[in-house]
Amino acid sequence: MFTDSHSPTSHVAARQHSLRERNLELVARAVFDSPAPLSRADVAAMTGLARATVSTLVDRLVAGGLLTELEPVAAARAGRPAVPLVPAPRTVVGIGLEVNIDYLGATVLDLTGAVVEEKVVRGQFHNSDAVALLTELGRLAASLIESCERDEMRVAGARLALPGLVDSGTGLLRVAPNLGWQGIDPVPLLGLDPKPVVVANNAKLAAVAELAGDVPPSFLYVTANVGIGGAVVVDRQLFLGERGWSGEIGHVVIDPNGPLCGCGARGCLEQYAGKAALMRAAGMPDDARLADLAQALMAGETAPLAAMQVAAAALGSALGDFVNLVDVGTVVLGGAYAILLPWLRDEVAIAINDRVLAAPYAPIEVRGAAAGSYAAMTGGAMEVLRDVLADPARWV
Amino acid sequence: MFTDSHSPTSHVAARQHSLRERNLELVARAVFDSPAPLSRADVAAMTGLARATVSTLVDRLVAGGLLTELEPVAAARAGRPAVPLVPAPRTVVGIGLEVNIDYLGATVLDLTGAVVEEKVVRGQFHNSDAVALLTELGRLAASLIESCERDEMRVAGARLALPGLVDSGTGLLRVAPNLGWQGIDPVPLLGLDPKPVVVANNAKLAAVAELAGDVPPSFLYVTANVGIGGAVVVDRQLFLGERGWSGEIGHVVIDPNGPLCGCGARGCLEQYAGKAALMRAAGMPDDARLADLAQALMAGETAPLAAMQVAAAALGSALGDFVNLVDVGTVVLGGAYAILLPWLRDEVAIAINDRVLAAPYAPIEVRGAAAGSYAAMTGGAMEVLRDVLADPARWV
Repeated sequence: MFTDSHSPTSHVAARQHSLRERNLELVARAVFDSPAPLSRADVAAMTGLARATVSTLVDRLVAGGLLTELEPVAAARAGRPAVPLVPAPRTVVGIGLEVNIDYLGATVLDLTGAVVEEKVVRGQFHNSDAVALLTELGRLAASLIESCERDEMRVAGARLALPGLVDSGTGLLRVAPNLGWQGIDPVPLLGLDPKPVVVANNAKLAAVAELAGDVPPSFLYVTANVGIGGAVVVDRQLFLGERGWSGEIGHVVIDPNGPLCGCGARGCLEQYAGKAALMRAAGMPDDARLADLAQALMAGETAPLAAMQVAAAALGSALGDFVNLVDVGTVVLGGAYAILLPWLRDEVAIAINDRVLAAPYAPIEVRGAAAGSYAAMTGGAMEVLRDVLADPARWV
Repeated sequence: MFTDSHSPTSHVAARQHSLRERNLELVARAVFDSPAPLSRADVAAMTGLARATVSTLVDRLVAGGLLTELEPVAAARAGRPAVPLVPAPRTVVGIGLEVNIDYLGATVLDLTGAVVEEKVVRGQFHNSDAVALLTELGRLAASLIESCERDEMRVAGARLALPGLVDSGTGLLRVAPNLGWQGIDPVPLLGLDPKPVVVANNAKLAAVAELAGDVPPSFLYVTANVGIGGAVVVDRQLFLGERGWSGEIGHVVIDPNGPLCGCGARGCLEQYAGKAALMRAAGMPDDARLADLAQALMAGETAPLAAMQVAAAALGSALGDFVNLVDVGTVVLGGAYAILLPWLRDEVAIAINDRVLAAPYAPIEVRGAAAGSYAAMTGGAMEVLRDVLADPARWV
């Protein structure tokens, strides 16, 4: 009754990770987490490991292609010049894949965080054919994998981002309402076996992409494309919930007497701050794009500005609930919201802070996302590389 | 950018826990988590450790008073009779302390989960004197500690449950609105030094108490006393959020045009389903108690039944948001809601499932809490003992 887990696996001595492997991970982490290159002596000082141990482990990480050595620099004191260590470029790579409503694509990142290659195919995938699209995405990914392997890079795996409810345990997609997909097992359709592919919700992977930038360790992420998605990041880790379905902020109640939502309930956030609702309230034509809305807002047009106020108040109300329930002090606005940030940030911040019980003690900060249009692809590739660094012994 | 933590401590080789200490923990966990007594051979089979290693570690846990041996039972096959191992009674104990609106108290639990002693003082602590009450509670706790130590039990520490915003890092109480307390450091006021005392929100500790019973590993907990409190438990662990302020469901928006709440916002859940709002809507006299409301409901009185419907719809709406945001498939209703369960459960379940996006794939279960009136005290004592089992080497 007092212990943390009743699962039988927790009783099995975790001897897979020997002390040596754990130390390998510590050394790799020290170099990867450092904003500046480290010497072996720096790594020893940071990890508390003996210099000789560090040297052996660094040699293994360099030989295995996870780290690389820069030109030696003269030491401040007498002695051998220090050899700066940095993550190795173009050795081990991770792939981020995505199908969204108006594009599909793939990005390849290396351990330095650089984009090795990226391909995006634009389209209109509302009510689309899952088999055809995933087959097409699989072919695109296969060509990137082939090109990486031709250049002697090792592909660690892939993440597939989908705009819907994905079971974190099985990778099954329950439903992606805007794609019109339901109850499919996406991984076999990609045909990438034996490369491991893990499926996740696109908003959650987009949130991970923010970790490459200057973001606090804990934040809530909310993004609007066609639907509204959300994610919880605590201590640089995604909080997925029990089945991977956390963050569905698009269906938080704004007004119990509000308009009927596609989900069957009334007054959901999507009906006030979703892209379609926003464009409609702003009086934009059916084929208008976000850039057109931004232009109308810059021109000071009345209906678009009023629509933004309604959306901001609703978004702030839902985010206030979100903060009251999960207690995270920073909110990052992504997707369409990042583009519309100048007309959202202050209003949203006021509405959130009005509702959050703890706001008088710690006001909630609202900021725009930094990871750009294909954040979910970037975040997916980053997750693959995070797995590599969590168990570097598998790769060296 | 790809690793899980940027905190410098994570770079330090975690050598405090030697392999031997980790194995000690595995052995202790195996016995504590087992519904039936285990033999040394059972423990070896469950942990994957060698028989001889298990025997040495068990001897240490028995000598240290964490485990105890029952009378040997004849083995099914030839050989020495097996000695069943169980948690030791009345050796190491944890203390749960609480100040709430109408009582303060302390409970002492031993490693078997049995109550060694419990004391509760009833009172009216609305807008009370924090120094006086915490001093009184400290004296009560000190007398329990003295009595335990006289009986040769070791007191591992205490948890203090308070109905307010508690910083998980520092243990400071930001505000407990119904007590009228603000910005205090409660631990020194108890005067229990050198016993370690950790402060936490009462709803969160009440949720922990459910883990002693037959509850799924992940659940949302919501409780009404004077205020409404909540907690998130995932995989038998409290999810506290960034500062320990998660679960403030009492201030989720039910209706943006609803009544003004004490927190300054409009239409908060507390204004529909808080105890005061409920009693008022039910037309109960000012000095009425929950038992009176339950009696009126059993008698089929119209106003109380209508009040319950309003409360259930509001509670279901807020819990629907909670589930959409954190994805946990079971909701446990505690405090006043556990007492009013027959008039809440079905209505709340319908309202939640109407709002949860994933409900068609996995309906949300609603159930009553099992841990009784002083759940936060029980949960607090359990948390102390969970810490003991997380590091048994400190105790043997």
